[in-house]
Amino acid sequence: MHSISEYQQSFLNYLESQTIIKEPKSLYEPIHYILSLGGKRIRPVLTLMTTEIFNQEYKKALPAALAVEVFHNFSLVHDDIMDDAPLRRGKETVHEKWNINTGILSGDAMLILAYQYFEKYEPVIFQSLAKLFSKTALEVCEGQQWDVDFENRDDVAISEYLKMIEYKTAVLVAAAMKMGAIIAETSAENCDAIYDFGLNLGIAFQLQDDYLDAFGDPETFGKQVGGDIIENKKTYLYLKALEFSTSDEKEQLLHLYSIQPTDNSEKINSVKDIFTATGASKATQEAIKEYTFKAFETLEKLHIEDDKKAILKAFGENLMGRKV
Amino acid sequence: MHSISEYQQSFLNYLESQTIIKEPKSLYEPIHYILSLGGKRIRPVLTLMTTEIFNQEYKKALPAALAVEVFHNFSLVHDDIMDDAPLRRGKETVHEKWNINTGILSGDAMLILAYQYFEKYEPVIFQSLAKLFSKTALEVCEGQQWDVDFENRDDVAISEYLKMIEYKTAVLVAAAMKMGAIIAETSAENCDAIYDFGLNLGIAFQLQDDYLDAFGDPETFGKQVGGDIIENKKTYLYLKALEFSTSDEKEQLLHLYSIQPTDNSEKINSVKDIFTATGASKATQEAIKEYTFKAFETLEKLHIEDDKKAILKAFGENLMGRKV
Repeated sequence: MHSISEYQQSFLNYLESQTIIKEPKSLYEPIHYILSLGGKRIRPVLTLMTTEIFNQEYKKALPAALAVEVFHNFSLVHDDIMDDAPLRRGKETVHEKWNINTGILSGDAMLILAYQYFEKYEPVIFQSLAKLFSKTALEVCEGQQWDVDFENRDDVAISEYLKMIEYKTAVLVAAAMKMGAIIAETSAENCDAIYDFGLNLGIAFQLQDDYLDAFGDPETFGKQVGGDIIENKKTYLYLKALEFSTSDEKEQLLHLYSIQPTDNSEKINSVKDIFTATGASKATQEAIKEYTFKAFETLEKLHIEDDKKAILKAFGENLMGRKV
Repeated sequence: MHSISEYQQSFLNYLESQTIIKEPKSLYEPIHYILSLGGKRIRPVLTLMTTEIFNQEYKKALPAALAVEVFHNFSLVHDDIMDDAPLRRGKETVHEKWNINTGILSGDAMLILAYQYFEKYEPVIFQSLAKLFSKTALEVCEGQQWDVDFENRDDVAISEYLKMIEYKTAVLVAAAMKMGAIIAETSAENCDAIYDFGLNLGIAFQLQDDYLDAFGDPETFGKQVGGDIIENKKTYLYLKALEFSTSDEKEQLLHLYSIQPTDNSEKINSVKDIFTATGASKATQEAIKEYTFKAFETLEKLHIEDDKKAILKAFGENLMGRKV
């Protein structure tokens, strides 16, 4: 088996080799720009790793890995327009650097490009990958729509929130891994088990993101700590805090989530205190452990060597132990 | 062979049968809305007709016809955002009726749905359709980007304009027909010839659109006559007028295209006078004939019965004789 950094490097080389700036430049330059901004490339690495886990040359999975990464970046470009976000990975977002029309159109082109990368595979594998991809992409849109809808609702249930992050984030992690399994031409049983592994790991990953956004170390966390609190985002932490709060705490939290102070540090600290006092913080950590454990359980269903299972488990533990 | 109105009715029944309003409603209702607004359904009709032309049951082409129509409507939803258009087919545009975010996200979902309709076909046909579709969809994006870029340029060449309308409009007409041919499993030669037929017919169709926008009968033309002139759009008529104009006419036309009067009727009439005086109007009518003739020439390359060629020719003549 290769190492994570070998997969990353191989992916970056492939990304570079596939990047052609063609006409009209105003359509393709923003695509090149967003794909060059970096990131951990977790999803394409998972595709490559999964192909090798199922005993196939991992490089066979490079086109599918690129499709997953280009689709992920398509969703970032369109989401950033919808969220009116000025920055992405510390750099200007596409619609900020160019304009909204460019953001819409370059995003559209990326969604189509993602499908084109699958053309490297023969028809049966192609159809299998494209079907999984379409199903996943539609779920990501649904998840994003729920996220948008939740902004204007104050009765979001925990189950609805979990469904939202499953669709918006986890299904793509799951599909990235299942694509690796499809390319390796392993059994349907293995394909389904690795999908479930990715799905649960993806949910744990997003809950971890919610947790670190409030309680991460400002020194190591990539984004602004407290960003979700500043934006009054209804995260797992927030919804659990509402559930567990006394009427006083609830009133205070609702008040804090209704104000937009110039200096946010006091607001952030007060909200974090409520997250801790109500037990929402602890409940979030437990949920992360629960979904990670669920992911590890599905490893039992995989028909692969134990050392391969150990690699997947180590990847999961590493992801959950992250500080960034 | 069935009649155009039979294809239309069959398509509308299929569209109805495939429309499911699922959750989140805020994502799927706008899709249902835009698809219900009507239109002539020219593209899906061409897909169905082409399948029958090549001796296959036309109903086999219904999923591909739906993919083409849903993609066409996706492009309308996103283009209407970019053009800030309030109306589409006399009704509110999606981003007007809901909001821009809904327009972006519902459009994205439609692009994915289009790919999903191809899943009804077996892998080899599926791959063939999806490849053609991706290539075409990307060209439509490129065409739209050129159209956007041209707004800020005053040196657009006729050849560039023709390339733009080829990509933005004609390739989808061509692909709609070729998909019908692929589903009928006819020869590669027939597939290519019918594509060329559709491409030239599509260019003629768009030039006709340019012409009717200025010189159409307000009684029968669906849109506001003079709309392109009001928006200072650099159409074929305008570019030809610039090319053929005396320095006086050119100065006058550039002036008219720089003003935004409250009452546009005088501006429209003055511009139309220049289109006529310079010969731009005549040149446009000749270009329409030229591309229609080119389309008819490609019919010679088709290996089908003469009565089938006559049907295609009649369709083209009918389309070019249209007043709407």
